[in-house]
This record gives sequence, structure tokens and C-alpha cells, in this order.
Amino acid sequence: MANDKKLVEEITSMDVDFAQWYTDVVKKAELMDYSTIKGFMILKPGGYAIWENIQRELDARFKKVGVENVYMPMLIPESLLQKEKDHVEGFAPEVAWVTHGGTEPLVERLCIRPTSETLFCDLYKNIVHSYRDLPKIYNQWCSVVRWEKSTRPFLRSSEFLWQEGHTAHATAEEAQEETIRMLNVYEDFCREVLAIPMVTGQKTDKEKFAGAEATYTMEALMHDGKALQSGTSHNFGDGFARAFDIQYTDKDNKLNYVHQTSWGLSTRLIGAIIMVHGDDSGLVLPPAVAPTQVMIVPIQQKKEGVLGACEKLLADVSAAGLRAKLDDSDKSPGWKFAEAEMRGIPVRIEIGPRDLENGECVIVRRDTREKITVAITDAAAKASELMETIREDMYGRAKAHLESHIYDAHNYDEFLETVETKPGFIRGMWCGDVACEEKIKEDTTATSRCMPFEQEQIADTCVCCGKPAKKLVFWGKAY
Amino acid sequence: MANDKKLVEEITSMDVDFAQWYTDVVKKAELMDYSTIKGFMILKPGGYAIWENIQRELDARFKKVGVENVYMPMLIPESLLQKEKDHVEGFAPEVAWVTHGGTEPLVERLCIRPTSETLFCDLYKNIVHSYRDLPKIYNQWCSVVRWEKSTRPFLRSSEFLWQEGHTAHATAEEAQEETIRMLNVYEDFCREVLAIPMVTGQKTDKEKFAGAEATYTMEALMHDGKALQSGTSHNFGDGFARAFDIQYTDKDNKLNYVHQTSWGLSTRLIGAIIMVHGDDSGLVLPPAVAPTQVMIVPIQQKKEGVLGACEKLLADVSAAGLRAKLDDSDKSPGWKFAEAEMRGIPVRIEIGPRDLENGECVIVRRDTREKITVAITDAAAKASELMETIREDMYGRAKAHLESHIYDAHNYDEFLETVETKPGFIRGMWCGDVACEEKIKEDTTATSRCMPFEQEQIADTCVCCGKPAKKLVFWGKAY
Repeated sequence: MANDKKLVEEITSMDVDFAQWYTDVVKKAELMDYSTIKGFMILKPGGYAIWENIQRELDARFKKVGVENVYMPMLIPESLLQKEKDHVEGFAPEVAWVTHGGTEPLVERLCIRPTSETLFCDLYKNIVHSYRDLPKIYNQWCSVVRWEKSTRPFLRSSEFLWQEGHTAHATAEEAQEETIRMLNVYEDFCREVLAIPMVTGQKTDKEKFAGAEATYTMEALMHDGKALQSGTSHNFGDGFARAFDIQYTDKDNKLNYVHQTSWGLSTRLIGAIIMVHGDDSGLVLPPAVAPTQVMIVPIQQKKEGVLGACEKLLADVSAAGLRAKLDDSDKSPGWKFAEAEMRGIPVRIEIGPRDLENGECVIVRRDTREKITVAITDAAAKASELMETIREDMYGRAKAHLESHIYDAHNYDEFLETVETKPGFIRGMWCGDVACEEKIKEDTTATSRCMPFEQEQIADTCVCCGKPAKKLVFWGKAY
Repeated sequence: MANDKKLVEEITSMDVDFAQWYTDVVKKAELMDYSTIKGFMILKPGGYAIWENIQRELDARFKKVGVENVYMPMLIPESLLQKEKDHVEGFAPEVAWVTHGGTEPLVERLCIRPTSETLFCDLYKNIVHSYRDLPKIYNQWCSVVRWEKSTRPFLRSSEFLWQEGHTAHATAEEAQEETIRMLNVYEDFCREVLAIPMVTGQKTDKEKFAGAEATYTMEALMHDGKALQSGTSHNFGDGFARAFDIQYTDKDNKLNYVHQTSWGLSTRLIGAIIMVHGDDSGLVLPPAVAPTQVMIVPIQQKKEGVLGACEKLLADVSAAGLRAKLDDSDKSPGWKFAEAEMRGIPVRIEIGPRDLENGECVIVRRDTREKITVAITDAAAKASELMETIREDMYGRAKAHLESHIYDAHNYDEFLETVETKPGFIRGMWCGDVACEEKIKEDTTATSRCMPFEQEQIADTCVCCGKPAKKLVFWGKAY
């Protein structure tokens, strides 16, 4: 049995070195690999299947609110990227440039999309003419490239998979409603599907998207107390519409600029899943996105009847709509347990000769390791029921972790001490001056994560400079 | 009512100008648009939704035969592309080259993947060590770029969406089995889902994939009698494995090269759907991939009870698992009929005040225009049932069209006359010499489409040169 725990022993404990623990989990659970090109990742079957489940669940939510999927070109002409001033300044330094097609040099350089605002603007300019053509609520699932200097699995890579929604509306009010509506879709999705609670609010001007009037964000708290920006929704006002000349005729036959939004969410969320739910035995996957939800493990599988009972149970559990597998390999049960734990499979069911005699099996929860003995005939129903229980419990624990890691700082001394000693979010008032954001970042590496929707006046003065406070801000170190 | 047919009147009749008919349908059914970059297309909601349905149906079939999805980088280093000699010769002339990342010139040029054999080989080299690691049956859904000089919606564009499967096996036999198995998955999918019959067989050496030992293909016959290569499956033998040094240790502890395959199918299939099933009123979509399967159209919708009955029916039809919509816009019923026909919606249901009095509605099939009067309470069940009937009938008509457009030629005079006068496939014997393929192409523009699996000796001599014949070949003009 010495060998059985090998898979697990190779993981660094998260309390010893969180960054190494993260890398170990990504590698041992076979989620991704680096390719030969620096910063470009390979999503392996275990990682890609999680993304497929995220896509399916989120896309169904998109379709319920009227989002239509499209596919836009992966290349953007340099002149198109340059049309909106702030946007090009934000992205030009980090794009990949195509200069040759086949053997011919191109007349104009093309960049691989880092994001597709400019392409959607170019489309909307051509297809939006009248108020009858509005709103346009388009989305695409694709990969984008941003040339990153330092990269980290799922959290920051030079190419990543995401969805980007791009909408056009008749009025500023509708655009603002859409911006918030989609942030809410994201937040609901993270709660109901990923069991991850979020802090939501508006980004400061310093942290907003290049070209946006306002950026809204959801921020998750990782197990180590660092924040992870997990999805953003931008209101562009009519800035892009003016730069691209996207106008429509209203009911009174007058020309108006459209108002636009965009919103995106990426494979970064897989990093959030790992760092919110994982433990020293590996991944703990939310049932809704787990590629395998139930792993059946025979004990003494060569004993008569054991494998047959497992196969029957596999059929039952699959018929109940769960993604289930049977591990009948020649590895030892201990190894199989460790492997199922490493991969974060929500429920494992063990059946051995003694269980069989009693018509029973043992269900083991990955999240709590609780063992439940049930009649084999009830196992499928029990496993189904556990999927929701597990999600609720995972959410509850993550929520408790989040809430117990939010600290208030009323002055800069308190702020510095809290940053130093208490990993988590710090609530602190802010004067609205970018200089304070810069000072805090320089002194502590913490940044303003968001101005929460629910504002409170916890002090009268800025936590940094002491001048009159304007906004409550969530500060934190972030990935 | 004069205006009601406007949508339809703007389509060129397919007998007058098939190419223009095709372009008109693509445009009027709002499937795609060109972008500002030559040869790069925008898949609009109507076109992308068909692709999503193709993906869902095909991916489910892949998973049943054990395919695992992954995602590989979109860029390939030039040195990696060059490792397999035939492969780089085939693709280097048509790739897009990235030379700068951000503001820095790259040390080595990277190409945007035209196909990903080299990347998968690089991965397999790293993860395949023992016979226990085999087989690897990976697939990815992505977009690829091939710099095309002349382009055509869906059929040929500089960027297109596809899936590419890449597998590694222990033996030559297994690789050959896999190659044929996946071609069969494709063919079944086209028959059962798209209602398109295929001619299948092996490509000649001249027409095979760059780097393959053998390429197998399925070829569909368009309404105008031209062939469309609709999916291919390649057996690489150990050619790539030798170039990339992918070896594994077998049970006897000996080193062996793996044997590999790849297989792909793309948005080109949307072109096949249009040109196999469409008519002068627009698209005719196979029910399984139609974004909307049932369109409910109220007649005199302002009359009391009409809209209410339509909404009730919409709920019933949706509950029966069909993708249904209600067109309650202020357009005339005639316009709505024309629009639903243009978009190829398989079934339309009309309800007016008179129908309501009788508790009836009228179901109209898009493919045959047959009208069926049924009780409103039976409409959902009838519409469900029609989905399979329509697919069967569409397949039957396409199959009859295919079979009635296959001609035999026993000598070159017959061949030339048939090419000239009878659009379709020509069966003709071949000596095996590439010179004959080249002569036929130069004389007629027809090419060898495939050497069918079911070989027959319809003559003793080559249809071109008169020397002894080796193979029966399907010849034809192709897109």
C-alpha cells in the first residue's frame, strides 16, 4: 500500500507553498501543459472538459436572456485597431502581428485579436441602420492572444479561451442596464454552477478597460487570501460609436449614435475553481462542471459478483443523468481513491464482497470525505441528491472563507498592518485620487479591486491620504 | 400583398445561375458576411447556430467512440512546421506568419495553424512513453487559417471553423481501423443528421493530404452536379512519428514508433447543406441542425384569441423538445411565410380565426410544401413526428439525385462527352498513372474524387490512356 499515496504525496501542501501547490495540482490532475511557445498552453482532456461544461452552462444562461452567438475573424487590420484612441493604447503593446500571408508580405499589418470590440463595431456600422435593428446582443466563444511577459497556468497566458459579448443599444440607459444584467448573469452562474461567491462593483478609472466609460467586475477570493478578477462587464457609452460612426435612425427619423457594452469571462475561472475549492489532496470540483461526477471503485474486484455489481451500478447512475465511470483497472483501490481525489471527482462509490453480501455500497464525498453507507438500489438516487448538497456546502464554505477574510481599515496604519498580517480583502475609504491608488500599490502591491455596489461610509477620510472620502473600496493583492 | 414575396423575388433561380443563387441564399438567409479582411468571414447568428448544432451532434458521436477534446496553441514555430517534409511543402505557401509579439520582433517566426499535426506530434512525443499510454484519441474544435487567393462563402475562406482529430496508436492495423472508423462516423452523421448521402473511398496519391500515407474522403453531390469534398480521414503510418521521434515501449520492453491518424470536418458542410437541399425559395434545413425547427405564424393576429392560441401552441411545441418560435411581428402573414421559407425552417404552423373555431391549425412542411390540417391539441406531436419524416424524405430525394447523376464512361470519348453534357460523378477505370489525372484535369477541369471502397471492373482499360486499368475511380468537377 506504500505506493498508493504516491499521487498525493507529490503535491506540496498549500500551507507550505501555495504557488507550488497550485502548479502541482494543475500538473497532477492533468489539466494543462505548456507548449514549446512560451506562454501558450495546451488544455488537456481533464482541463478542457471543465471548460466545455462551463461553456454549456453559461451559454444556456446567455440564450435565456436573448444572446445570439456569432463568429468574427481572428485578425484585425492595424487601421481598425487604431480607431478608438484609448483602446489602441491599451492593447497595441501586447498584440501579435501578422506581416506575411503565404509568401507575400501584407500591405497592412494584421493583429491577432486581443479582444474584438473593433471588429464588432465594424460589423454594427454595416448592419445597424434603424431603431428596428436594435438591440444587437452578440457573443462569441473563441481564443484571444495577448503577449504576456510572465505567465501562470489559467491565470495569465499569452493565448486563452473566453467568451466576449458585444452589444449595441438605442439609449445610454439600455446600455447601462445590459452592462449590469450580464454581470448579474456571471455572478449567478458562479454561485449556482461553480459554487464561488463574488464581490461585485465598479472598477476605478485607473483599473477600467481601455476605451470604457465604466467597468464592472466580480472578484473572487482565493484560498491564500488573494483576489482574482473573474469576469468584467463594460459600458462604452457612445465612445466607440463615435469613433466608428455607428448611427441609427430613431422613430422620429433623427440620427443617433448607438450605446455599446462588452463583457467577458475566460478559462481563468478554472484557476478560480482550483484555488477556491482545492485542498491538499488535489482538486475539488463543483459537480456541475466535473467531467466525471461519480467514480465507482470495486474492492477486491476479482471476487465473484463485484465487477458485475459495479457495472450494474454504473448503468443505474448513468441513467440517473450523472457523468459516471467505473475504474476497473488493475491498480489498487488505494491508488484509485487517491486518483479520484486528485481529479476532484465529487462522489466515489465503493463496492466490495462484504458490501455485496449486505446489498450495500459506500458513497464517499470528495468535499467532506464523509462516508455514507446505502443500499445499492438507492445509490443512484443518493448520488444525484448529493450533487446539489455538495454544491451548497462548497458554496457555504467558500462564502464563510470570503466573509471571514474581509477587514476594515480606517487609516493608513491600520491598512498597512492589515495588508501585512491578514490576507484577504480590505475595505477602506478612498478620496477618488489616482495618486492614492498608486501609493498603495507601490507600498503594498495591493490594488483597488472594486467600489462595491453596496456603498457604506466606514470612515470620513481616505484610508491613504486622509482627505475627505468619496467611495468605499475593496482593496487587495490580486493574481 | 405585392411586397410579401420581395424576400424571395430577390433570389436568382438556381437554374438561371447556380453560383448567384448560392450567394443570394447565403446573404438573404443571413448566414454570413465578409469582413474587411479579404477572405475572412463573419458567421452571423443564422449561420453560426447551424454550426453549433453540427458541433453538438457530431461531438456527441465522437464522445461515444472515446474521443477526448483538448485545445492546442493557435501558433506553430516555423521549425516545428518544417519537421515533416511533405507536410511543410503542402502548407508553408498558404500560412499567415506572425513576426512580432507586442513591440518586439520574434526570434523565430510563428505561423497561425493551418492544421495542427505538428503540434499534436510535439505533444505526443512528450506524453506517450509506454504502450499503456496508447491509444491517444484527441480532437479539437477551433479555427484555422489558410491564405486563399480566391474565396467563396463556406466553401473556401482564409479562416474557417472545423474540428481536427489526431490519434496515436501502437500498431499500423489500429491506425488503419481508426482512420476508417472516423470516416464512418462522419458518413453516419451526414446521413442521420444532415440527410446528405456520400460517396466514400480513398484519394489517389495526387489528391491525398500532405504527409499522409493514405487519405480517405466522403464526397457529396451538389444540386448543380458538382462534387464537394465534405470530410477526410488520413492514415499517416509512422511517417510523422519518425520525423518527430514519437516512440513507445511495448510489452516486451522494445521501442516502437506510434502510428497516427487525423480527420477533419469544417463549416464547409454548411455549404453542402445549402447546395444539396436548398431550392428557389431559399434554404431547406435538415431538422436536426435547424436553429428554429418550428415557426408559428398567426393569421389575422389582432382577432381575439389568435395570439393567445399561438402562445399556447408555442409552449406545447417547446415542451415537446422542439426549437420553436412565434412570429408576432407586424409583418403580413405572406411576408412571414416567405421569410420562414428563406431561412429553411422545417415546419411552419398557421393559426387563424377560422382554424380556431374548428380547434385546428395548418402545418406546412418546408421541404415539400405539403399542408396538413390537424387538431391544435395534436399539433406538437405531429410536428415532432414530422422532424424524422422530413429528414428521411430529404435524404431520399438527395440519394435519388446522387444515384441518377452517376454515369459510367468506358473510354475517353465517352468520358469527354459525359463531362460536357451530364453534370455529376463519372465512374471510369484508371491505370494508376498521375499523368492521366493531370490530362483529365487539364482537358475537363474534372478531378479524381475517390477510389470507392466498393471496387468494380467496369472496363479493362484506363478511361484516359487505354492502358490496363487498376482502379475504379469516381471523377467529377468539384468545388
